Amino acid sequence: MQVESLINARWVIPVEPGHEILDFHSIAIDQGRIHAILPTSEAREQFIAQRTVDLPRHALIPGLINAHTHAAMSLFRGLADDLPLMDWLQQHIWPAEARWAHEEFIADGTRLAVAEMLRSGTTCFNDMYFFPDVTAKVAAQAGIRSVIGLILIDFPSAWAEDTDTYLSKAVEVHDQFRNEPLVNTAFAPHAPYSVSDEPLQRMLVMANELDIPIHMHVHESGEEIRQGIEKHGCRPIERLQTLNLLGPSLAAVHMTLLNDEEMVRVADSGASVVHCPESNLKLASGFCQVQRLLDAGVNVALGTDGAASNNDLDMLGEMHTAALLGKGVANDPSALPAEQVLQMATLNGALALGLAEETGSLVVGKAADITAIDLGQPQTQPVYHPVSQIVYAAGREQVSDVWVAGQRLVSNSRVNCMDVQGITLNAARWGQRIGSE
Amino acid sequence: MQVESLINARWVIPVEPGHEILDFHSIAIDQGRIHAILPTSEAREQFIAQRTVDLPRHALIPGLINAHTHAAMSLFRGLADDLPLMDWLQQHIWPAEARWAHEEFIADGTRLAVAEMLRSGTTCFNDMYFFPDVTAKVAAQAGIRSVIGLILIDFPSAWAEDTDTYLSKAVEVHDQFRNEPLVNTAFAPHAPYSVSDEPLQRMLVMANELDIPIHMHVHESGEEIRQGIEKHGCRPIERLQTLNLLGPSLAAVHMTLLNDEEMVRVADSGASVVHCPESNLKLASGFCQVQRLLDAGVNVALGTDGAASNNDLDMLGEMHTAALLGKGVANDPSALPAEQVLQMATLNGALALGLAEETGSLVVGKAADITAIDLGQPQTQPVYHPVSQIVYAAGREQVSDVWVAGQRLVSNSRVNCMDVQGITLNAARWGQRIGSE
Repeated sequence: MQVESLINARWVIPVEPGHEILDFHSIAIDQGRIHAILPTSEAREQFIAQRTVDLPRHALIPGLINAHTHAAMSLFRGLADDLPLMDWLQQHIWPAEARWAHEEFIADGTRLAVAEMLRSGTTCFNDMYFFPDVTAKVAAQAGIRSVIGLILIDFPSAWAEDTDTYLSKAVEVHDQFRNEPLVNTAFAPHAPYSVSDEPLQRMLVMANELDIPIHMHVHESGEEIRQGIEKHGCRPIERLQTLNLLGPSLAAVHMTLLNDEEMVRVADSGASVVHCPESNLKLASGFCQVQRLLDAGVNVALGTDGAASNNDLDMLGEMHTAALLGKGVANDPSALPAEQVLQMATLNGALALGLAEETGSLVVGKAADITAIDLGQPQTQPVYHPVSQIVYAAGREQVSDVWVAGQRLVSNSRVNCMDVQGITLNAARWGQRIGSE
Repeated sequence: MQVESLINARWVIPVEPGHEILDFHSIAIDQGRIHAILPTSEAREQFIAQRTVDLPRHALIPGLINAHTHAAMSLFRGLADDLPLMDWLQQHIWPAEARWAHEEFIADGTRLAVAEMLRSGTTCFNDMYFFPDVTAKVAAQAGIRSVIGLILIDFPSAWAEDTDTYLSKAVEVHDQFRNEPLVNTAFAPHAPYSVSDEPLQRMLVMANELDIPIHMHVHESGEEIRQGIEKHGCRPIERLQTLNLLGPSLAAVHMTLLNDEEMVRVADSGASVVHCPESNLKLASGFCQVQRLLDAGVNVALGTDGAASNNDLDMLGEMHTAALLGKGVANDPSALPAEQVLQMATLNGALALGLAEETGSLVVGKAADITAIDLGQPQTQPVYHPVSQIVYAAGREQVSDVWVAGQRLVSNSRVNCMDVQGITLNAARWGQRIGSE
C-alpha cells in the first residue's frame, strides 16, 4: 500500500495504552494521520512511502503539548528578572504591555515563540494573550497546532475596552478560525483576582454554547488567595465552584498552595490542572503538589508559562524540572516517574484542552503530531530506558524532526516552515527598541 | 605586540570584580593565560594574534566549574531512576559498582563525562570516585582541568581493601600527578556515615601536610542525620567540627536540612558548600537553603553530582535549576539572582577548590579558562541582560567554544580534543553489557 510518509525509528513511545516502548518500529502517515504503527521489518514490506525517514538512534514521542503560554511575551524575555513579584508585574510587565502589546508586537513575538517551540519539539500550544486573532494567524501560517485563548479581563487593553467588547471579540475570533483545522479556541478569563463574577458568568454560558474549554490562572500565589478571601469572603476554588466554573472544561493553571479539601474538590470536579514548575519557582509562587493531585485522579498537564517568567518555552526542560521538583516536593524519589511526566507533557495536555481525540499520543487515527529525539549523543548515552533519557538527560537540541498533522515542520534540527533568521533579527530589533526606553 | 590568541566578543562577563558586563570587548591570550581584556577596537590596534576568533553574538564567561562529580558513573546514566533512595543505592548502584567499577569502566565512563562536560562549557571538574588515577589520566589527556578526589571510605572496593591502602594510594596518586599542570587533588572522604573517626583523623593530618582541600558529601539526607545521631550522639556537622574537619579546606557537598545554628557554624568555619540542586531534587534529599547560606557569608559553589542522579553533567542546566529552586525555597523571587548563580558556577567553585588564583574568573594573569555562549539564537533573543539569558534561557547547545589554559578544546560547538563518536559508541556497548545482566 502507498502512504505519504514512513518513519523508521529505533524506539516508538506511544504513551498510550500503557507505557510500552516499541523497539525498531515505524509509523506510517497518510493524509496527515497515523495510519499504522508496526515493526520496521513489516513496514518495509507493507508500505511504499512517498517519503521515508530513517531515524536509527531516535525515539518518536507524541508531539509535546505546551498547555500554558503567553507566546508573544517572548519579546520580553529577560526584561525584568530577579525582582519581587508585585514589582515585576506592576513596575515592569504591565507597563511594558501597555506600551508595546499591539498587533505588530504580538505577531513578531508569537513568531519568535513558535520558532522556539517547534525547534524544541512542541506541536501544540495553549495560549493566553491580547490580540488572539493575531496569534492564531501566525500559528496557522507556521503550521503548528494551537489553542487560542479568547481573553477576558476586567481591565481595558489595546485589544478591548470593556467586558462587552472582550466577549463580542471572543466570539468573533472563534468564528473567524472555525474552519482552520489546526486552530482551536478556549475562553481565557485571566485569573480569579482580575475577572469579576458577572463577566465570568456570561463567559461560562458562551463557553458552554461554543463547547470550548476554559483556560485560567488559578491559585498562582498566596497573595491571590488572600485577596480572594478579602474580596469574596472565600478562597478562589470555592468561588469558582459557586460560579459553576470548576468542572471538566476548566484547565486551571498553576494551582499552588491547595489545601487537602481543595484537592478533593478539584478531583471531584473533573477539572484539569496545568502545572508550570519553572514559572512557579522563578516567581516564588509556591509549590504545586503534583503527585498528590495525580494520586487523587486529577489530570495534570504541563506548561512553560510565558518567556518573561521562565525564560524559555522548552518542554523537554520543563519535563526535567517537573520530574525533579515533583520528587522534592513529595519528599519521595519515586514520585513523578519519567513515564508519568512524559504523559503530562503529551496526552494529559490533549485531555486538558479537549483534543485527546486528535493528538497527545501515537495512536492509529490520530493526527500525526510527532517529535523525534536523537538519543545517540554522548549526553544521553548509554540508553537503558529511553523515557528516562528523554525526561532526565535529553536537551531541546536533540529534537531532530517534528511533524504536525503529518507535515514535517522540523527536519534535521532545522525549522523549515519559518524564516528563523529573519525572526531572530527582528526580535533583536524589538529588544533594542524596548530596552532603550 | 604578538599574542597567541585574540577573542573578540559581543560581551565579556568577567564575574569579578563586581558583576560588570563589558560590551564589544576582547580577550588576548598568551602562554595559556589571560594577557589582556580590553575594548575590541583597542585590541585590534594593540595585538597581532596568531589566531583570531570573532564571536559577534557571543558572551565570554569564565569556564564553568562543576564542583561535584562522579564522572565515571555516566555509564550508569538512567540505569535505575525513580526509585526510593535506599532501593536505588542498595539494590542498584552499589551492586552495579561492585560488578563494574574497575579500571576500564572508569576510563571509558570518564571519557564520556569529559566529552559531555567540555561540550557544555565546563572547564574544570571536582571528582570523587574509585581509581582516581585513571580519572586523572583521562582528564589530563583531554586537556580539561580537574580536581581528583583521593577517595576514602570504610568499605573495601576494587580500588583499595582497607583504610591503610586507601590512604597510601591517595598519597601515591597525589605524587603521581604532582607535575601535571591541569591535575589537582583533594582528599575525598565519602560521607560522615561511611567513614569512621580514625580514618578521618589520619586523612586530615595528611590533607594539611599536602595542603589540599577536602571534598566530602555532608548532610545529603535526613537519614544521614538520624544515623549520625544514633551512632555518634550528635548531628554530622557537630561531629565534623569536633574532628576539626569543618574548616576553610572543606568543600561540603549537598548540605540540605541544616538548622539555623548549623548555618552559623558553617559560616564561621570558612567551609564551602557545594550545592547540587538537581541531584537533591531527584533523590528527594531535602532542600539546601542557598540564599540563607549566601547571606551568612558562606561560599556556595555548584555541582551536578554524578549522572546516575541528575542525569546530565550540564552546568548551564544546573545554573538554571539553582536559580529557580533557590527562589522557590527562599519564597522570594529576588533570591539567587542570575549574577550570583553565575558566580556560584565559576568563581565560587574555584574558591571552594583552592584554585581561585588560577581560574574561576576572567582576570589578567589567570589561566585562560573561557566558555563562549552564542546568544544569537531565537531561544535567547532579545538580549536585555546577557547574564539573565545565560542563566535562564541558554542551553548547552549554545556553547560554541571552550578554552582551557588557552587551548581551544571546543570550537564551533565541536569537541576537538577527543574522539566523541568513538566514546559514544563505546558507551553504548557498555550499556548493552551492563543492561543485559
